[in-house]
Amino acid sequence: MYDIIIIGGGAAGMSAAVYAMRGGMKTLLLEKISCGGQAANTYEVDNYPGFYNAPTGPELMEAFEKHAEKFGIEIKSEAVREIINADGAVKTVKTRRNSYETKTVIVATGASPKKLGAEGEVELAGAGVSYCATCDGAFFKGQDTVVIGGGNTAFEDALYLAGFCEHVFIMNRSKRFRASKTLVDRAKAEPNITIYTDMVAEKFEGNGKLERIIAKNTETGERGYINAAGVIIAIGITPDNAVAKGCGVELCERGFIKTDMYLSTNISGIFAAGDCRVSPLRQIVTAAADGAVAATGAINYILKGN
Amino acid sequence: MYDIIIIGGGAAGMSAAVYAMRGGMKTLLLEKISCGGQAANTYEVDNYPGFYNAPTGPELMEAFEKHAEKFGIEIKSEAVREIINADGAVKTVKTRRNSYETKTVIVATGASPKKLGAEGEVELAGAGVSYCATCDGAFFKGQDTVVIGGGNTAFEDALYLAGFCEHVFIMNRSKRFRASKTLVDRAKAEPNITIYTDMVAEKFEGNGKLERIIAKNTETGERGYINAAGVIIAIGITPDNAVAKGCGVELCERGFIKTDMYLSTNISGIFAAGDCRVSPLRQIVTAAADGAVAATGAINYILKGN
Repeated sequence: MYDIIIIGGGAAGMSAAVYAMRGGMKTLLLEKISCGGQAANTYEVDNYPGFYNAPTGPELMEAFEKHAEKFGIEIKSEAVREIINADGAVKTVKTRRNSYETKTVIVATGASPKKLGAEGEVELAGAGVSYCATCDGAFFKGQDTVVIGGGNTAFEDALYLAGFCEHVFIMNRSKRFRASKTLVDRAKAEPNITIYTDMVAEKFEGNGKLERIIAKNTETGERGYINAAGVIIAIGITPDNAVAKGCGVELCERGFIKTDMYLSTNISGIFAAGDCRVSPLRQIVTAAADGAVAATGAINYILKGN
Repeated sequence: MYDIIIIGGGAAGMSAAVYAMRGGMKTLLLEKISCGGQAANTYEVDNYPGFYNAPTGPELMEAFEKHAEKFGIEIKSEAVREIINADGAVKTVKTRRNSYETKTVIVATGASPKKLGAEGEVELAGAGVSYCATCDGAFFKGQDTVVIGGGNTAFEDALYLAGFCEHVFIMNRSKRFRASKTLVDRAKAEPNITIYTDMVAEKFEGNGKLERIIAKNTETGERGYINAAGVIIAIGITPDNAVAKGCGVELCERGFIKTDMYLSTNISGIFAAGDCRVSPLRQIVTAAADGAVAATGAINYILKGN
């Protein structure tokens, strides 16, 4: 019987492991592939406070894993299928082969940005192709940058980038924007933002790093290109919340887990941390903080004998 | 005219500086003494995720400062006296000698644990005398530990420590506890928790690290001692919110700043981050995450032309 089972070995899950183990809890971390989460796919992390030498994502996540292992965390590479008796005092976490009993669960299953599926997207990811302006925008300072998408995030990203990039091009597949009128008007008023509508990116080109985006006009069929050092693909983010949803954890309309201030979900003894929850910002440092808060919440839940 | 003025150079303020500068904001950080905040008074930090080699507090805070300086943050050693025209589009931050105009303010002024004022308390702080069980409790694993206080935090700390310490003694100055009955009952039921009432700590003794606490019974006047490797002084925490209060920022009844999810206060363009705000947990990593969220909030506020 475990005190805490953490589902997911990204920044949130490994930080939760540090706090749970230091708190003397018998803890198991279940990770379906290998630890590191989304951050492990990041080429350079320049904004996790304290790591001022900009480690690679894998390097930083290795440091997180070493930190959790220092306190003896038990990690198993198993994908969680479901949580049985989720609202009971003893919950059962089932993987394909095994079942584990636990008093509490921390769901730290993360989220993934939606991919365009354009040619060169995978090859140049982390080398100019990015899914997060706050994370990577600063790498494109003084250079031309493209934002793909038409929602609030795309327009917020464009306005953010316009503050320090040479020029920002917003590329949207239709004439309609999901973004609020305020944001669209604000972007239109910026001298260094240009908005292209009815335009889809077909191909990302470059020699080792992004240099050019080949785009097609969806109305005329014409093709053209934009030279750019960076592209932010801002077409949405999908949380990995099938297990949480399956056991009755309440989600928002976009599929993220709702929590209270202590990161407790609607189900007693089930907590959520990191990108999978409703959150004001999704960064490595916010995921790490979430892990600390959720583990502390789980510890207090156990200590109070709830 | 600044985009963002950050008040306070602790973990929250310096993380906010990293995010503000990477976002291309003209930013000034005002710190009354020297950067580092409460963390700089910590001997060993073993739970800031990624720094698995347990740096000292000053080492970790130096890394934070280098990180902010890498992006060119301007830091001035000046104590802020007041914020004029706090709810205006242009706010004025006044120090003794200067006035600075800014579009937004991030209040990251921190908080300090209340001190007992007992002999040896200052000398042995960080060497057995601690104000935070979550931070330092793990250092006392397998050893006898004392918690001083009678509120919820003291009892939560005692229950937390009882999970991995040999024995935990709660020392309270009266027979009455401010803690909830549930917590008190739970502590009474733990075989390795002993509660002493009408007892005050007079002196902390030890050769380089805490070994013994001299205590006095307030009813009988009798003195005795407890041998212990650690003591958690949990008699309250005081936020440093005079400036925020002075300009109309809404505080909770305990004096902490109320914020929304984006860390905006009730005053448009004023944000709060770190220990000074109402928060589920006060750790370096949560302060750092707050800095990121508040800076992003301030950036979005400016970009949207609020």
